[in-house]
Amino acid sequence: MKKVTIHIALKQGVLDPQGQTIQTSLHSLGFTEVEEVRTGKTVELFLEDSADIEARVHEMCDKLLANPVIEDYSLEVEEALRT
Amino acid sequence: MKKVTIHIALKQGVLDPQGQTIQTSLHSLGFTEVEEVRTGKTVELFLEDSADIEARVHEMCDKLLANPVIEDYSLEVEEALRT
Repeated sequence: MKKVTIHIALKQGVLDPQGQTIQTSLHSLGFTEVEEVRTGKTVELFLEDSADIEARVHEMCDKLLANPVIEDYSLEVEEALRT
Repeated sequence: MKKVTIHIALKQGVLDPQGQTIQTSLHSLGFTEVEEVRTGKTVELFLEDSADIEARVHEMCDKLLANPVIEDYSLEVEEALRT
Protein backbone atom coordinates (compact mmCIF):
# COMPACT_ATOMS: atom_id res chain seq x y z
CA MET A 1 0.00 0.00 0.00
CA LYS A 2 1.37 3.37 -1.01
CA LYS A 3 0.49 6.90 -0.07
CA VAL A 4 0.88 9.47 -2.82
CA THR A 5 0.67 13.12 -1.82
CA ILE A 6 -0.13 15.50 -4.66
CA HIS A 7 0.68 19.17 -4.06
CA ILE A 8 -1.33 21.41 -6.37
CA ALA A 9 -0.54 25.13 -6.58
CA LEU A 10 -1.52 27.96 -8.87
CA LYS A 11 1.13 28.79 -11.44
CA GLN A 12 3.20 31.86 -10.75
CA GLY A 13 1.46 34.89 -12.21
CA VAL A 14 -2.04 33.44 -11.87
CA LEU A 15 -4.18 35.60 -9.59
CA ASP A 16 -5.13 34.04 -6.27
CA PRO A 17 -8.25 35.81 -4.95
CA GLN A 18 -8.52 33.44 -1.98
CA GLY A 19 -4.94 34.28 -1.01
CA GLN A 20 -5.65 37.99 -1.33
CA THR A 21 -8.69 37.66 0.92
CA ILE A 22 -6.65 35.82 3.53
CA GLN A 23 -3.99 38.53 3.36
CA THR A 24 -6.57 41.28 3.90
CA SER A 25 -8.00 39.39 6.88
CA LEU A 26 -4.53 38.85 8.38
CA HIS A 27 -3.82 42.56 8.04
CA SER A 28 -7.12 43.40 9.79
CA LEU A 29 -6.08 41.12 12.64
CA GLY A 30 -2.80 43.00 13.02
CA PHE A 31 -0.47 40.66 11.12
CA THR A 32 0.76 43.44 8.88
CA GLU A 33 4.12 41.75 8.20
CA VAL A 34 2.47 39.40 5.71
CA GLU A 35 3.31 40.60 2.20
CA GLU A 36 1.82 37.88 0.05
CA VAL A 37 -0.38 34.82 0.49
CA ARG A 38 -0.70 31.97 -2.00
CA THR A 39 -3.09 29.07 -1.48
CA GLY A 40 -2.87 25.53 -2.74
CA LYS A 41 -4.40 22.09 -2.35
CA THR A 42 -3.12 18.69 -1.39
CA VAL A 43 -4.68 15.38 -2.32
CA GLU A 44 -3.50 12.24 -0.53
CA LEU A 45 -4.19 8.98 -2.31
CA PHE A 46 -3.91 5.61 -0.63
CA LEU A 47 -3.60 2.95 -3.29
CA GLU A 48 -2.30 -0.49 -4.11
CA ASP A 49 1.31 -0.57 -5.14
CA SER A 50 2.15 -1.20 -8.77
CA ALA A 51 5.16 -0.75 -11.04
CA ASP A 52 3.60 2.17 -12.91
CA ILE A 53 2.14 3.94 -9.87
CA GLU A 54 3.66 7.34 -10.72
CA ALA A 55 2.48 7.20 -14.32
CA ARG A 56 -1.04 6.27 -13.13
CA VAL A 57 -1.13 9.18 -10.67
CA HIS A 58 0.10 11.60 -13.34
CA GLU A 59 -2.79 10.39 -15.49
CA MET A 60 -5.23 11.01 -12.61
CA CYS A 61 -3.86 14.54 -12.22
CA ASP A 62 -4.15 15.29 -15.92
CA LYS A 63 -7.66 13.86 -16.19
CA LEU A 64 -9.26 15.02 -12.95
CA LEU A 65 -7.19 16.47 -10.13
CA ALA A 66 -5.26 19.40 -11.56
CA ASN A 67 -6.01 22.03 -14.16
CA PRO A 68 -2.83 22.20 -16.26
CA VAL A 69 -3.77 25.61 -17.66
CA ILE A 70 -3.48 27.40 -14.33
CA GLU A 71 -2.01 24.88 -11.91
CA ASP A 72 1.29 23.07 -11.33
CA TYR A 73 1.55 19.90 -9.29
CA SER A 74 4.18 17.67 -7.77
CA LEU A 75 4.02 14.12 -6.41
CA GLU A 76 5.51 12.48 -3.34
CA VAL A 77 5.29 8.68 -3.09
CA GLU A 78 5.85 6.91 0.20
CA GLU A 79 4.96 3.72 2.01
CA ALA A 80 1.52 4.02 3.63
CA LEU A 81 1.70 3.60 7.39
CA ARG A 82 -1.79 2.23 7.78
CA THR A 83 -2.83 -1.05 6.13
CA MET B 1 12.08 37.66 3.69
CA LYS B 2 10.78 34.26 4.71
CA LYS B 3 8.34 31.85 3.15
CA VAL B 4 6.21 29.87 5.56
CA THR B 5 4.23 26.97 4.16
CA ILE B 6 1.32 25.85 6.30
CA HIS B 7 -0.06 22.37 5.59
CA ILE B 8 -3.62 22.01 6.85
CA ALA B 9 -5.29 18.59 6.90
CA LEU B 10 -8.44 17.18 8.41
CA LYS B 11 -7.82 15.22 11.60
CA GLN B 12 -7.88 11.47 11.28
CA GLY B 13 -11.43 10.23 11.76
CA VAL B 14 -13.03 13.42 10.44
CA LEU B 15 -15.14 12.68 7.36
CA ASP B 16 -13.82 14.14 4.11
CA PRO B 17 -16.75 14.41 1.65
CA GLN B 18 -14.58 16.14 -0.95
CA GLY B 19 -12.11 13.26 -0.80
CA GLN B 20 -14.92 10.73 -1.14
CA THR B 21 -16.25 12.54 -4.20
CA ILE B 22 -12.79 12.52 -5.78
CA GLN B 23 -12.47 8.80 -5.06
CA THR B 24 -15.82 8.07 -6.71
CA SER B 25 -14.78 10.09 -9.76
CA LEU B 26 -11.41 8.33 -9.99
CA HIS B 27 -13.18 4.95 -9.85
CA SER B 28 -15.54 6.04 -12.66
CA LEU B 29 -12.48 6.95 -14.72
CA GLY B 30 -11.05 3.44 -14.22
CA PHE B 31 -8.59 4.18 -11.42
CA THR B 32 -10.05 1.46 -9.22
CA GLU B 33 -6.79 0.91 -7.30
CA VAL B 34 -7.45 4.05 -5.23
CA GLU B 35 -8.69 2.98 -1.80
CA GLU B 36 -8.90 6.28 0.03
CA VAL B 37 -8.58 9.96 -0.77
CA ARG B 38 -7.95 12.71 1.78
CA THR B 39 -7.83 16.36 0.84
CA GLY B 40 -6.00 19.23 2.47
CA LYS B 41 -4.96 22.82 1.99
CA THR B 42 -1.70 24.69 1.90
CA VAL B 43 -1.21 28.38 2.62
CA GLU B 44 2.10 29.98 1.68
CA LEU B 45 2.92 33.20 3.48
CA PHE B 46 5.67 35.56 2.38
CA LEU B 47 6.59 37.79 5.26
CA GLU B 48 9.31 39.87 6.83
CA ASP B 49 11.69 37.93 8.99
CA SER B 50 11.51 38.35 12.76
CA ALA B 51 12.69 36.48 15.81
CA ASP B 52 9.22 35.26 16.74
CA ILE B 53 8.09 34.35 13.23
CA GLU B 54 6.92 30.83 14.14
CA ALA B 55 4.96 32.05 17.14
CA ARG B 56 3.30 34.71 14.96
CA VAL B 57 2.32 32.16 12.33
CA HIS B 58 0.93 29.80 14.97
CA GLU B 59 -1.19 32.72 16.17
CA MET B 60 -2.41 33.34 12.59
CA CYS B 61 -3.34 29.67 12.28
CA ASP B 62 -5.22 29.64 15.56
CA LYS B 63 -7.07 32.88 14.84
CA LEU B 64 -7.87 32.52 11.14
CA LEU B 65 -6.29 29.85 9.01
CA ALA B 66 -7.04 26.52 10.65
CA ASN B 67 -9.99 25.13 12.55
CA PRO B 68 -8.43 23.36 15.55
CA VAL B 69 -11.59 21.34 16.18
CA ILE B 70 -11.34 19.37 12.95
CA GLU B 71 -7.98 20.26 11.44
CA ASP B 72 -4.30 19.70 12.16
CA TYR B 73 -1.56 21.85 10.70
CA SER B 74 2.19 21.93 10.38
CA LEU B 75 4.62 24.70 9.45
CA GLU B 76 7.69 24.79 7.24
CA VAL B 77 9.83 27.94 7.37
CA GLU B 78 12.38 28.66 4.65
CA GLU B 79 14.20 31.54 3.03
CA ALA B 80 11.99 33.13 0.33
CA LEU B 81 13.60 32.92 -3.09
CA ARG B 82 11.94 36.04 -4.44
CA THR B 83 12.53 39.44 -2.90
